[in-house]
Amino acid sequence: MKKGELKISSFVSVLSVVIALLSCQPGDVQKYSRVPEQDPDVLSFIFPLGQRGSTELFTGEAFHFGFSLDSIYNTVSGNVYFKAGARTNWHTHPGGQILIITDGVGYHQIEGEPKQRIKKGDVVQCPPNVLHWHGASADAGLQQIYIVPNIDRGIVDWQAAVTDQEYEN
Amino acid sequence: MKKGELKISSFVSVLSVVIALLSCQPGDVQKYSRVPEQDPDVLSFIFPLGQRGSTELFTGEAFHFGFSLDSIYNTVSGNVYFKAGARTNWHTHPGGQILIITDGVGYHQIEGEPKQRIKKGDVVQCPPNVLHWHGASADAGLQQIYIVPNIDRGIVDWQAAVTDQEYEN
Repeated sequence: MKKGELKISSFVSVLSVVIALLSCQPGDVQKYSRVPEQDPDVLSFIFPLGQRGSTELFTGEAFHFGFSLDSIYNTVSGNVYFKAGARTNWHTHPGGQILIITDGVGYHQIEGEPKQRIKKGDVVQCPPNVLHWHGASADAGLQQIYIVPNIDRGIVDWQAAVTDQEYEN
Repeated sequence: MKKGELKISSFVSVLSVVIALLSCQPGDVQKYSRVPEQDPDVLSFIFPLGQRGSTELFTGEAFHFGFSLDSIYNTVSGNVYFKAGARTNWHTHPGGQILIITDGVGYHQIEGEPKQRIKKGDVVQCPPNVLHWHGASADAGLQQIYIVPNIDRGIVDWQAAVTDQEYEN
């Protein structure tokens, strides 16, 4: 049995936007100067931030807080907080995956299909052995609970990083 | 694939406390006049309210919003919102259950063990075929996501209601 205490974490987004505006080329200004879909500072936290995700498996800043990994329940579950722009590598789950979005805005993409916008209150199912990635939008973070069932078949098979071109498409 | 939109629902608690104070015996006043652990009106909603739970399976006002029931994932998941005082009947899950508390304060009790206080950010595991109940505290509601894995073994076996005496113990 695991229990988590509420923690509040805030991060400064304004500074990074200012730096981006100052350092980027003229063609990039439109991307950074548009009004964000959601102020990243208002993202709520139900669970502790957890551990920073490995740079070999995530692009950008993602934080993982595990709930359970237990053969009795045959399930792995936990929370991942993605800062704006952060995302998983491409990966598959032998037993499938259910994502529950508790705050923010992001994307989920199955290989060969268009990128899908996901937001607070959405529940996304990704079938077994289907290549996919998920993460935050470019200008707002994402809070997601994940459920990986059927772990007697395996948990996750990690593959290549999602390139900036794939992310922006 | 299912998706839910955020809905805000508010409910009036002050009136019920006033009615309780006016109608109850002197010995009950202390119970109702103490400061609530959390103002029920501030409970947040990630998912739609859903369907009112059957009075045969729940005591008080509970609302169920299902995410998924899918043999591919071998899992049932969803959200239950319990108003203050509401709770499930005693029940078991052949494949166990994982509860994720996203807001509020409540209780979880396994038969023969003390009632356990649960709150925002807690994750509770209840093993297969163990008799238990869960619900809101007497003066604050509860928002919980549930995961019932291993549904090839069955989903839930409902039993008797939790009496007021059992709830208050």
